[in-house]
Amino acid sequence: MHHKASLIRGHWIDNLIHIYSHLIPAADLVVQLSPTLKTKPDVSSFGVDFTDHMLTIEWSSTEGWKAPLIKPFGNLSLHPACSSLHYAIQVFEGLKVYRGDDNKLRLFRPMLNMNRMASSAKKACLPAFDQPEFLECIRRLVEIDQDWVPHSYNASLYIRPTFISTEQSLGVKKPCRALLYVIMCLAGTYFNTNAASLWADPKYIRAWKGGTGDCKMGGNYGCSLFALDEAVDNGCQQVLWLYGDDHQITEAGTMNVFLFWINEDGEEELATPPLDGIILPGVTRQSILDLTRNWGEFKVSERYLTMSQLCSALKQQRVKEMFGSGTACMICPIRHIAYNGQVRNLSNIYKEEI
Amino acid sequence: MHHKASLIRGHWIDNLIHIYSHLIPAADLVVQLSPTLKTKPDVSSFGVDFTDHMLTIEWSSTEGWKAPLIKPFGNLSLHPACSSLHYAIQVFEGLKVYRGDDNKLRLFRPMLNMNRMASSAKKACLPAFDQPEFLECIRRLVEIDQDWVPHSYNASLYIRPTFISTEQSLGVKKPCRALLYVIMCLAGTYFNTNAASLWADPKYIRAWKGGTGDCKMGGNYGCSLFALDEAVDNGCQQVLWLYGDDHQITEAGTMNVFLFWINEDGEEELATPPLDGIILPGVTRQSILDLTRNWGEFKVSERYLTMSQLCSALKQQRVKEMFGSGTACMICPIRHIAYNGQVRNLSNIYKEEI
Repeated sequence: MHHKASLIRGHWIDNLIHIYSHLIPAADLVVQLSPTLKTKPDVSSFGVDFTDHMLTIEWSSTEGWKAPLIKPFGNLSLHPACSSLHYAIQVFEGLKVYRGDDNKLRLFRPMLNMNRMASSAKKACLPAFDQPEFLECIRRLVEIDQDWVPHSYNASLYIRPTFISTEQSLGVKKPCRALLYVIMCLAGTYFNTNAASLWADPKYIRAWKGGTGDCKMGGNYGCSLFALDEAVDNGCQQVLWLYGDDHQITEAGTMNVFLFWINEDGEEELATPPLDGIILPGVTRQSILDLTRNWGEFKVSERYLTMSQLCSALKQQRVKEMFGSGTACMICPIRHIAYNGQVRNLSNIYKEEI
Repeated sequence: MHHKASLIRGHWIDNLIHIYSHLIPAADLVVQLSPTLKTKPDVSSFGVDFTDHMLTIEWSSTEGWKAPLIKPFGNLSLHPACSSLHYAIQVFEGLKVYRGDDNKLRLFRPMLNMNRMASSAKKACLPAFDQPEFLECIRRLVEIDQDWVPHSYNASLYIRPTFISTEQSLGVKKPCRALLYVIMCLAGTYFNTNAASLWADPKYIRAWKGGTGDCKMGGNYGCSLFALDEAVDNGCQQVLWLYGDDHQITEAGTMNVFLFWINEDGEEELATPPLDGIILPGVTRQSILDLTRNWGEFKVSERYLTMSQLCSALKQQRVKEMFGSGTACMICPIRHIAYNGQVRNLSNIYKEEI
């Protein structure tokens, strides 16, 4: 693989300069290359095999941002009182770099991730950062570990920007110290199945108006894990999160959710819940909306969908497809939904394909 | 101070054996004493000065609990993908050890903290632990760092048990590795004032039915920080968290909240919101309820309280006291509440005392 690296380096840089010509170079970046490189596994599931290097950038309220550092992948040394570990002052992002048939590497709409990370950071009282400059540092990290990007249509390299408080005191407060870091891992398939079964129990609420459900804050995930555990105990892969007395459909596990159906008015419609504060503004979600609106083949709506609407549509065979979307899972068909003591089977709809 | 240590050690052990005689000793505990001890500061605010030692206990799904270890206080070495930093799979507790006039050291109702930590851990999909055995390890840690317990009526030593996932992969899932650790710090006054001003804005919701507001999970705090920031920007110390269309009073910052008033029926009543799933079951809260019920001097209620009830009572001069309660702040009078564009002044009620 190594001999290809230098060949594609030119293409890679051409490609990125084309996309990011507006960037200020992260001029202060310090690079410490690892003396040894890990063996790359042939097959990998999602999120377990990390690359050789990582990016770290420290911040403090007194000194501002320090020089970005790319260094060998390794453990973080954290004060045991650091408030990311006590009060979940932590946000993250997820984006992927793909290797094309032309061997060029491409990041998928990374500025959307940078923007969302900045919003999440603001909500977590973490400091602002220069988004293009941070992205340039990520680009350098990808460039250094470029051999990790799989030569495969089904796999990619997942980039995980992470932003944590490193405040070393136990009062609940806005942090005076923080660490922005980036790790990268192989991204095989997220689920061990090609279609997900969902557990929809209205007693569990993922997010609520006046909260942080529209941000990628760690707390949204930790606080929802017990519902996922119950879903798994009941033979499902993910939770279908409901909201309100009318059991609105909001998200499916860590995915946005889409329903392609004949709606109540007899129209062919691709529908997903609107960004009303409890829905994560997914990059894949946005891309699906952009793409399908551009196709102009059917109605595309951001609208509320309730379980009773879905159940009626299933009964009347008006459901064409239902799927989750997210960077990690990409597009994931939904096979079953367990709700109100019954399992609604969707797999007969598209049994040919999955 | 050091020469007193050996004198009081006997008292201390007597005292604890009296309280915890039902405990199994944590027989496997390994103690590595620090070769040097820090200088103890004369004055300390809350949560910034940590003692010389810490307790760590590692867990994995394959090997179970390892031997508890008391070692010199120092940084944790954590994998950068560890899911406590990404998905806030983390819970904590807070309890205090006090030095009495008799020089004996006493933990305040520690089994209530052990029980609550076990509940929080269950909600975070962290493993079960032997509560008395864990408490015995904490007792040993306190014993080793006993000179840190202030000789003061106004200060104490704060104990922070912390339980984090150390799962090293990025899929959102129940952790296979975890770390239970305990650090201790000096606990001076939590607020820089002897009465708190609160910011009550119904657009911010701390917790909701079907969520984790009744657990000490990190996410509850990180996800509420932006409201605290707005409170501070508006000259308040804490948020008064409201809930529902009727603006129910729920908690005040990191405290439970109590209203001592003449209620709508003309009764003298000490009231605090009920444990309905969105309220943290505070140890201080429970102790206040136990104590005042035992006094039998006035009605003691766990009941809903709305902002309109409070505002009417303030107008009609039926409010006798309002205060927050919590382990860190203990009892904190409430001086002002900013709500609906108006500042409601409570300080005239008890201006003599504060």
